[in-house]
Amino acid sequence: MTRIDLNADLGEGFGAWQLGDDDAMLELVTSANLACGFHAGDPAGLLRVCRSAAERGVSIGAQVGYRDLAGFGRRFIDVAPEDLLADVVYQIGALRALAQVAGSAVRYVKPHGALYNSIVSHRNQAAAVAAAAHQVDPSLPVVGMTGSVFFEEADRLGLRTVAEAFADRAYTPDGRLVSRREPGAVLHDPAMIAERVLTMVTLGEVAAADGTTVKVNVESICVHGDSPGAVQIAAAVRDRLESAGLVLKAFC
Amino acid sequence: MTRIDLNADLGEGFGAWQLGDDDAMLELVTSANLACGFHAGDPAGLLRVCRSAAERGVSIGAQVGYRDLAGFGRRFIDVAPEDLLADVVYQIGALRALAQVAGSAVRYVKPHGALYNSIVSHRNQAAAVAAAAHQVDPSLPVVGMTGSVFFEEADRLGLRTVAEAFADRAYTPDGRLVSRREPGAVLHDPAMIAERVLTMVTLGEVAAADGTTVKVNVESICVHGDSPGAVQIAAAVRDRLESAGLVLKAFC
Amino acid sequence: MTRIDLNADLGEGFGAWQLGDDDAMLELVTSANLACGFHAGDPAGLLRVCRSAAERGVSIGAQVGYRDLAGFGRRFIDVAPEDLLADVVYQIGALRALAQVAGSAVRYVKPHGALYNSIVSHRNQAAAVAAAAHQVDPSLPVVGMTGSVFFEEADRLGLRTVAEAFADRAYTPDGRLVSRREPGAVLHDPAMIAERVLTMVTLGEVAAADGTTVKVNVESICVHGDSPGAVQIAAAVRDRLESAGLVLKAFC
Amino acid sequence: MTRIDLNADLGEGFGAWQLGDDDAMLELVTSANLACGFHAGDPAGLLRVCRSAAERGVSIGAQVGYRDLAGFGRRFIDVAPEDLLADVVYQIGALRALAQVAGSAVRYVKPHGALYNSIVSHRNQAAAVAAAAHQVDPSLPVVGMTGSVFFEEADRLGLRTVAEAFADRAYTPDGRLVSRREPGAVLHDPAMIAERVLTMVTLGEVAAADGTTVKVNVESICVHGDSPGAVQIAAAVRDRLESAGLVLKAFC
Repeated sequence: MTRIDLNADLGEGFGAWQLGDDDAMLELVTSANLACGFHAGDPAGLLRVCRSAAERGVSIGAQVGYRDLAGFGRRFIDVAPEDLLADVVYQIGALRALAQVAGSAVRYVKPHGALYNSIVSHRNQAAAVAAAAHQVDPSLPVVGMTGSVFFEEADRLGLRTVAEAFADRAYTPDGRLVSRREPGAVLHDPAMIAERVLTMVTLGEVAAADGTTVKVNVESICVHGDSPGAVQIAAAVRDRLESAGLVLKAFC
Repeated sequence: MTRIDLNADLGEGFGAWQLGDDDAMLELVTSANLACGFHAGDPAGLLRVCRSAAERGVSIGAQVGYRDLAGFGRRFIDVAPEDLLADVVYQIGALRALAQVAGSAVRYVKPHGALYNSIVSHRNQAAAVAAAAHQVDPSLPVVGMTGSVFFEEADRLGLRTVAEAFADRAYTPDGRLVSRREPGAVLHDPAMIAERVLTMVTLGEVAAADGTTVKVNVESICVHGDSPGAVQIAAAVRDRLESAGLVLKAFC
Repeated sequence: MTRIDLNADLGEGFGAWQLGDDDAMLELVTSANLACGFHAGDPAGLLRVCRSAAERGVSIGAQVGYRDLAGFGRRFIDVAPEDLLADVVYQIGALRALAQVAGSAVRYVKPHGALYNSIVSHRNQAAAVAAAAHQVDPSLPVVGMTGSVFFEEADRLGLRTVAEAFADRAYTPDGRLVSRREPGAVLHDPAMIAERVLTMVTLGEVAAADGTTVKVNVESICVHGDSPGAVQIAAAVRDRLESAGLVLKAFC
Repeated sequence: MTRIDLNADLGEGFGAWQLGDDDAMLELVTSANLACGFHAGDPAGLLRVCRSAAERGVSIGAQVGYRDLAGFGRRFIDVAPEDLLADVVYQIGALRALAQVAGSAVRYVKPHGALYNSIVSHRNQAAAVAAAAHQVDPSLPVVGMTGSVFFEEADRLGLRTVAEAFADRAYTPDGRLVSRREPGAVLHDPAMIAERVLTMVTLGEVAAADGTTVKVNVESICVHGDSPGAVQIAAAVRDRLESAGLVLKAFC
């Protein structure tokens, strides 16, 4: 493998509220998962980020989430599948128009937060999200976790699935993420994170929290856009990958 | 003139809340101005209305409004033009995806409520709405009032403008609508309304509130979808126009 | 037992959207569970309902719910307990001010929809709702289901718990409600419902869906405010109870 | 005059979004204008700020605004007076409950943003806000601009009016604020601002943008809580006032 994608969640402010440094991150990542207004992202702010991404040739993805501004999409909502399908179609469509006006396009779909976590195992919601992406455009890839029911449902519909790994998250021995409620769930040292990502990408494995080695299937590396030190971590990861001879390039 | 369009505002419920009888209206109108989620319209409800409209061959338009669910888009909001532009792009895009999934498309743009009224004279907001439609698709017609600055701005961009008249509203001698706060602003008698519409369409004129005759330029007749008696009025209008030999057909 | 309370969910419109006939229901019930703005209820509409309730001497309760206008509070949301506590305090406080301005007061708290159902068994959310009511006013009664963990938590804090039964819902043999997804979950015949309520109130029992007899502990009867036939059902229940010599009176 | 109040807008985050450093500001001000959820402020965040304010003995005011999270309450909305009245009652009530749970109380009302500016001259909205405060509690002072119609309406109802001046804003020769769209409208130098405030408080005058001297009537000084350098400016103002022998103390 000689090329890899670096993705981050961006466009997650809302009106007067900012989150993270989108422009700095857009200098580093190759794919930008942009909020679509349901968990974050007001249209004018999203249009600005779309323009920044377009100028830099960064690929734009629709980061679809639950309708929950107050909870930033981080709380599971027991949405009926038919409602969720329509919610996801709506969000993709809204971002598509903004991206188009900015001279770009929505090139993939990545669920956000609690929706991302839910559809690792929640069959009906997973099927709704996959169907929404498929009905909008069957050629839209979806980004998520290997082994998730979301990927099973996406596979059934013939959607391209793009497996991602998380740069700054600890893994369990069975390849899941350590819950954020556990100590050590989130890693902070840029150099260590960068080295860890290089191992993921080149060897397809990562050291789990208990020291065992876990296989990871990875077409894209997710770096966080809003945590303290986000820009430093993304820069360290990018530098380490490039110095090892890898090419950073959007997966689509 | 042998053909005319009949449009109504539909898809204006939100979640558990219904407004009007969309299915009955879709049997009567040729163009459905569907809410886009900012003043009304949840995605699942809109998807259902898109499907109903698609099945019946009714043309779908994006009824874009201020972001104001609590006010149903009926209150002027002093939105900055650059924010309004993005809000309108977002709304059109969201509805486009829903319409597409339903097997149809968004074929025109019609501003709603206070935004509609504002851009009769508010230059900056009018320019923002016109630019939004143009940037999404320069071939999208816009529906509105003859003589509005909205139409001036749309003309400047080369957008097709579709002038409408209101079936059940009283007119002032200079061709404006009598304010809803005035007595007699809204007409209620289906037969009288139907006759009035026929005169508008065939003669291009309407009797103003003071009895004088006013010229009206009209490619489409707007009937209300949610007022008491809405379905009866729309049916009466349709019957009268058809019995006079006119063909009801979407303007696009 | 010679007196009984009749409660209904009212004030559940939002802006332009109406739900049910609040004024007709206020002629029949003794306690009005008013929405507080999170699942339904805009301030101006709530103030009107508060005034109607105050004029008729109907007791006002705060019908607190998840923050979910699009879902009408009918979808479980995995809100953190500390957030839920603050959400409930906020809602009670908002309604208290409206009720006060209308010349009345909030006299009890009743959770709505998915929150009501969740805290039958969800310990942390139940504790949060009970704590919120207690912290606002330890003398506020809470209305809910006998046997719920919500009542356990309320008891622990010394809150008065008011057990209710549902006029138009089928019961399981163990005293729970038959899920709305099951056929026969909701009853529709006013006379049958009225007779059933009389048995609940006078004998403390109800016929379960399988024909067995279930004990019900009941200080208040909940009638629905927005279902088709809501007013007729509430009137039939009230008439039957009064003709049997019972006094309809708010529990507080 | 030997004592003066220092107020700032706080509690203006929303869920995951933060704005300004509330805890640092609460060490400096004597009155905290807390958002009430309509332009900013989620209940859990507001409860935390209420607790911080209560611990430090900082007076809590209800910073009521238009319902406009996307616009942060900075856009005029043409709300009908009866709706605005209810909106303001709702907001005050919600914050009262949170403040009470935190061991404090709402001690005054200060309109926010576009509502603040609107009711300098918009009679109907001004009357609605004054009536709302009065109906909730006729002893609640209101904070605003001398000479505003808001103060006229508040006076008519017998509300106490507390005139404020702005530490970091340029004034016109007739005592109004220079519009933020003008260059030089906002001052940035902490030492200069502190000196200016001292002159306002001790001499009752301020140098207008054109160099003339303007009379200012001031019971409270407003410092901004979220601008860059907000904490430094507030600290400089407080130090200067204290070193001149003034006592900083809430006006109520």
